[in-house]
Amino acid sequence: MAAAAAAVVTNGSSGGDSSKSAFAEIYSKLKEEMLEDPAFEFTDESLQWIDRMLDYNVLGGKCNRGISVIDSYKMLKGTDVLSKEETFLACTLGWCIEWLQAYFLVLDDIMDNSQTRRGQPCWFRVPQVGLIAVNDGIILRNHISRILQRHFKGKPYYVDLIDLFNEVEFKTASGQLLDLITTHEGEKDLMKYNLTVHRRIVQYKTAYYSFYLPVACALLLSGENLDNFGDVKNILVEMGTYFQVQDDYLDCYGDPEFIGKIGTDIEDYKCSWLVVQALERADENQKHILFENYGKPDPECVAKVKDLYKELNLEAVFHEYERESYNKLIADIEAQPNKAVQNVLKSFLHKIYKRQK
Amino acid sequence: MAAAAAAVVTNGSSGGDSSKSAFAEIYSKLKEEMLEDPAFEFTDESLQWIDRMLDYNVLGGKCNRGISVIDSYKMLKGTDVLSKEETFLACTLGWCIEWLQAYFLVLDDIMDNSQTRRGQPCWFRVPQVGLIAVNDGIILRNHISRILQRHFKGKPYYVDLIDLFNEVEFKTASGQLLDLITTHEGEKDLMKYNLTVHRRIVQYKTAYYSFYLPVACALLLSGENLDNFGDVKNILVEMGTYFQVQDDYLDCYGDPEFIGKIGTDIEDYKCSWLVVQALERADENQKHILFENYGKPDPECVAKVKDLYKELNLEAVFHEYERESYNKLIADIEAQPNKAVQNVLKSFLHKIYKRQK
Repeated sequence: MAAAAAAVVTNGSSGGDSSKSAFAEIYSKLKEEMLEDPAFEFTDESLQWIDRMLDYNVLGGKCNRGISVIDSYKMLKGTDVLSKEETFLACTLGWCIEWLQAYFLVLDDIMDNSQTRRGQPCWFRVPQVGLIAVNDGIILRNHISRILQRHFKGKPYYVDLIDLFNEVEFKTASGQLLDLITTHEGEKDLMKYNLTVHRRIVQYKTAYYSFYLPVACALLLSGENLDNFGDVKNILVEMGTYFQVQDDYLDCYGDPEFIGKIGTDIEDYKCSWLVVQALERADENQKHILFENYGKPDPECVAKVKDLYKELNLEAVFHEYERESYNKLIADIEAQPNKAVQNVLKSFLHKIYKRQK
Repeated sequence: MAAAAAAVVTNGSSGGDSSKSAFAEIYSKLKEEMLEDPAFEFTDESLQWIDRMLDYNVLGGKCNRGISVIDSYKMLKGTDVLSKEETFLACTLGWCIEWLQAYFLVLDDIMDNSQTRRGQPCWFRVPQVGLIAVNDGIILRNHISRILQRHFKGKPYYVDLIDLFNEVEFKTASGQLLDLITTHEGEKDLMKYNLTVHRRIVQYKTAYYSFYLPVACALLLSGENLDNFGDVKNILVEMGTYFQVQDDYLDCYGDPEFIGKIGTDIEDYKCSWLVVQALERADENQKHILFENYGKPDPECVAKVKDLYKELNLEAVFHEYERESYNKLIADIEAQPNKAVQNVLKSFLHKIYKRQK
């Protein structure tokens, strides 16, 4: 399985090559430990189930979040060479984030009634799985606590690590609730969508766990106290927000060949940055067009929405937002007293600035 | 809301009256704190959602598990009078167990496609809720970490408390997985049912969180190290197993008027202690009857299964099991060196021994 994980991880991920292969190797060790956990008396059937469930859901992503723990840790330490122990601990925290991601995705797909994920059917759609996937989600979350206990109990930052994962999980679930009750509940009501709501959903649902969590893990591993890094947290959450706005933009304006999917945010009535900007700028007549056509599968309706986006010049609005965000982020990063921390933040920013996919 | 919680809690619960009312009062304080958690920027809509979700799912049970934290703690301290601070902490841990129970029930009902719970529709069946209930389950679990962090961070036993809830949750989810893949997966296959499987499901899915967890919380609150109470753990898990066997027995032989529901374990193809005992004792011909009739809604099939139980004298088998379990438990309890611990365990045992509901 190490080979399989390696093949998956090194295909299209973002870290340095050495980080990637080190990272991939650790997966099968962690999985093995989960299958030998003395806190449960496994049967053959339940062992096979967990084994398959982990491979299906934890693997298959790009592992950007996980690998960035190792890359960030190297930059914080100012070296490219880590001891075997350090590498193992950094990779383990990286995998904890991948496990967390798997947990969110398994449950989100059930709630959104999605069809596919990472090029295969969603886990709950696999025959014989169905709603057992809810419990599998819980088990994925529990594995994080088991992994942290096994490898970090006794470290001075053990409590901080647990509190960090708990806080980030709580923020993510709260953001998901806001998303669910704002954009899914009852009749469709565009009136609920505005910049504040969009920003809050994006921040809580995505930015904390995707951008803040990997760096926070690397900081704890370096012996830092997270209370001293409030600015770093804010910068990373801003970056996560910017990343999600790009995502919303690319859904409409990206090259489907290049991003690997055809965007359907308009059809799906998503609380996208684009529709929020459109609502902000539309006159009464244009608002009417949005209310009539947004969230309908009919290609003519989609075309009318896209025409309106053009009329309102949203492409230019986005490029202006992108420029401003970048300048603000760079200024905030350069105001950081610690050069190593600056490097970590700039490396994140340059991975996503003006991305096309 | 304190009054409402009080009305619910004091109706039919097991603790002393003073424990009950102290317990009920704490609920609204804890809920208030969850609604003011600075880790999320609530909107009016999300505040209302959480408020209603908590009342709907955390309240409405008998709170036996929660109240037994306070009762156990009093016995361990050898006093009926606790300071305000001690009362608050014991009640808070009790409510954490009630939150945990709510989390399991919300998700179990989705997985089992159940209709009602505690005399009202299951949460996911409430209009406008649906599968948002999955995320609500997650939020209930997250509240436990939030509550523990707020009220116990800094206590010498904070890490042990977190590890305890994590370990018990992991055992419960693993037991639930075993139950789901043994009794729900694919075609019905009675061959999978046997005493070992039954015992393992019951122990992990129910006994740890219902019997061990409340006492373990009281022990930590008393400053004890749980590593020194391995026997106590085993005794409580045995008691939890015995409790579930009673449940299986009462489903078939209890008075529906008295237990408040009509048992349907036979129709539902449950891995009940009774069918497992029947399989153990049946000859080829009797096994054939079980295979033909177990798990079918037809009342004639149910009657045939019940006739077979009679033929195999399962009532007597149960009473013998009950007597033996009791004697074994009493012997194990009296072998405990600590008198206060003996009292806690005996109090638990006498609440359930020969119960009729």
